[in-house]
Amino acid sequence: MKNILIIGAGRSATALIKYALEAARENNWFVTVADANPQAAEQKVGGHSHGRGTWLDVTKPNDRREIIERNDVVVSLLPAHLHIKVAKDCIKYKKHLVTASYISRDLYRLGDQVKDAELIFMGEMGLDPGIDHMSAMQKIDELRDKGVEITAFRSYAGGLIAPESDDNPWHYKFTWNPRNVVLAGQGTAQYIENNQYKHIPYHRLFAEHDVVDIPGMGEYEAYPNRSSLLYRETYDIAEIPSLLRATLRHKGYCKAWNALVQIGLTDDTYPIVDSKSLTYYELLEGYVSRNLPGDTLKAKLAKMLKIAQRSDVMKKLEWLGLFEKEQIGLNKATPAQILQHRLQQKWTLEPDDKDMIIMQHEFEYTHKKKKELLISTMVLKGENSIDTAMSKLVGLPLGIFVKLIMQEKITATGVNIPVMKEVYDPVLEELEDYGVIFKETKRTL
Amino acid sequence: MKNILIIGAGRSATALIKYALEAARENNWFVTVADANPQAAEQKVGGHSHGRGTWLDVTKPNDRREIIERNDVVVSLLPAHLHIKVAKDCIKYKKHLVTASYISRDLYRLGDQVKDAELIFMGEMGLDPGIDHMSAMQKIDELRDKGVEITAFRSYAGGLIAPESDDNPWHYKFTWNPRNVVLAGQGTAQYIENNQYKHIPYHRLFAEHDVVDIPGMGEYEAYPNRSSLLYRETYDIAEIPSLLRATLRHKGYCKAWNALVQIGLTDDTYPIVDSKSLTYYELLEGYVSRNLPGDTLKAKLAKMLKIAQRSDVMKKLEWLGLFEKEQIGLNKATPAQILQHRLQQKWTLEPDDKDMIIMQHEFEYTHKKKKELLISTMVLKGENSIDTAMSKLVGLPLGIFVKLIMQEKITATGVNIPVMKEVYDPVLEELEDYGVIFKETKRTL
Repeated sequence: MKNILIIGAGRSATALIKYALEAARENNWFVTVADANPQAAEQKVGGHSHGRGTWLDVTKPNDRREIIERNDVVVSLLPAHLHIKVAKDCIKYKKHLVTASYISRDLYRLGDQVKDAELIFMGEMGLDPGIDHMSAMQKIDELRDKGVEITAFRSYAGGLIAPESDDNPWHYKFTWNPRNVVLAGQGTAQYIENNQYKHIPYHRLFAEHDVVDIPGMGEYEAYPNRSSLLYRETYDIAEIPSLLRATLRHKGYCKAWNALVQIGLTDDTYPIVDSKSLTYYELLEGYVSRNLPGDTLKAKLAKMLKIAQRSDVMKKLEWLGLFEKEQIGLNKATPAQILQHRLQQKWTLEPDDKDMIIMQHEFEYTHKKKKELLISTMVLKGENSIDTAMSKLVGLPLGIFVKLIMQEKITATGVNIPVMKEVYDPVLEELEDYGVIFKETKRTL
Repeated sequence: MKNILIIGAGRSATALIKYALEAARENNWFVTVADANPQAAEQKVGGHSHGRGTWLDVTKPNDRREIIERNDVVVSLLPAHLHIKVAKDCIKYKKHLVTASYISRDLYRLGDQVKDAELIFMGEMGLDPGIDHMSAMQKIDELRDKGVEITAFRSYAGGLIAPESDDNPWHYKFTWNPRNVVLAGQGTAQYIENNQYKHIPYHRLFAEHDVVDIPGMGEYEAYPNRSSLLYRETYDIAEIPSLLRATLRHKGYCKAWNALVQIGLTDDTYPIVDSKSLTYYELLEGYVSRNLPGDTLKAKLAKMLKIAQRSDVMKKLEWLGLFEKEQIGLNKATPAQILQHRLQQKWTLEPDDKDMIIMQHEFEYTHKKKKELLISTMVLKGENSIDTAMSKLVGLPLGIFVKLIMQEKITATGVNIPVMKEVYDPVLEELEDYGVIFKETKRTL
């Protein structure tokens, strides 16, 4: 095997391409980076001796097949719904496939064909999903090997702004897909606590957040993710009495975000009439309930939200410019689109800003008749607004795993996610060289 | 023209069939009632000399076409998505069509064909939509003819339980589609107040209800419907500064229903795991927030809802049996399905219970430099749980309008809703004989 194909040269590809090119130099492989924008692909390759950037429109079957045929391993950074086309070509030409996206049902259905072709299709091989799976499974397997019974597993992750670049009252900036941040949590969060199913509808999610201590970092807020229950199967912990996955935010964030939810500004289901000419002030006025006491919009809004007019939450809303008589300027936009537009003006990374990833797993178990709590914590900061921790932690696992395939160190076949020892052990070990270190603290309960 | 076809012999068909048979006797017409359940159709016709019940599976094109071809006017009481098939056959065989459903886009698209065939397809010809359109348009046209400028139009309607049959703490029973009641208001309500768009998201809708005085009946609660803005076009009142359509409920209902919304029990988007074996108590426990003070589920729930444990809202929840350790018994049911199931055990009409329809339109306008408020109110009670006011008010407009077509008194063609004088005047006039009387009160503002 000699040739690696990376489809997609967008923002999240930087760390992967850099890693793949270095591995190619060491092993005498060749990396092709293909994108609808060939300049972006070429620029990311940067004239490296073991790589090239090229044009590819993945919706054109012939072009797609031709380039896949000429490579041995394919990494797809395409939007998730496009993976299936690439996957079918990979089966046809017997090529391995790696992605950072959640594996779709359609992709899972290809499992037998992939196995028969003696290929591996690895999905969820980035940060979250990706490093979360690997670090959690490594610890779960380790505890099981000791013969202990795990009674609780709680996993927290957050893409945040590093304290040294934290200069706004929300203590948050966009370090990843802004749309996902605005729509986060919609639906009903479900998890298990002491063998009981818990359901938290969206309109209570941010009001009822938890507080989590991150050793060395202090307290953070955490709101449950929608999907915790799925991980019983994923991690083979069907009988676990308590299982929770949650998202981390800086203290004070959830209460203020809850105000935006309560107002109705995160709704993405209908367009605001006249959204182009309306001002932010008028938009907000449209959401303020009838017959509220107060002379000003601020007074009425505070009353509606049952908070003080000089509270921190009101200050955060003011800082976003939601009371300003400035035109929105977006045509037929939903409230969520308008909010995202405003946030993108305010929560932008400055060139030298550093992002920060926090991931923490907590395990409760009984070991030699003692109830113990094991906390495993990873904190990683980015370099600047381009070399972000986010891009690194999504790209490096992909790159390392591609290297393992190229070196023929992977025996698994079929459609998989990284929950097997032969994957998580070497990937996590090499990630340590890049500062991805899970520190453990343990205490008796 | 001699023959009328009524497709559908369900609960809502009773009053229509009765009316149509009487009109047939007087005018020597013949009524065919067709249903997938021929016994129900025959039973509703009851051996009448001018009618018959028969079997029809509307999904079978040949059977459907054959029966449509033999009639002059078709009334479809089918579920809304099935109208389109009937409509296309009606064009083919040149038959008029009448329904009580909202007109779909697909149906509107047939407009030119219907016009070319010199037919009338009348939709929204029941109560709401139906009588609401007719009574509002009659008044709007009347005010316009006087040359006044209407500055506000608010329209309220409710399908309620009559005071004499009101014997539960919710002051509500199902008199119509229970599923619609459970899901009512989901999305964001939009209306206009003093030229400003107002948006109320679902999670605030029932908490921020209005109180409306119904002359002769006292105060009722009203929550805005989702669709008020659409009526600017429907009623040709594009420039009106205030426009609201809302649903009426007995006092105390909205606050208690809001508790169900806040808990999360009206959510229809995901199934509850183990819903068959779970008890109502356990279900509720699953929704109660973490870390709430209190010894009992009731205490915790009251805390979560920020209400007193002995409040009226808590009493209403208790009366529904939501704290009972009784198995739900429904497989893979959503919270909304479980709630509906429970409500159907509690909010059932007794045989002699009377339902009650209230409809009230309020118009504000300036007449001879005086600002006036005109209130037009209709209250009608049913006879019992079979001859409901609801069935009467949905069926009679359909029947009367069919008679007008048969008597060739309608000149309009195309796809329509009943907002034209040649329709609303005779229909409303005849409805008065059945007790459908709008009483007016007027005052200077």
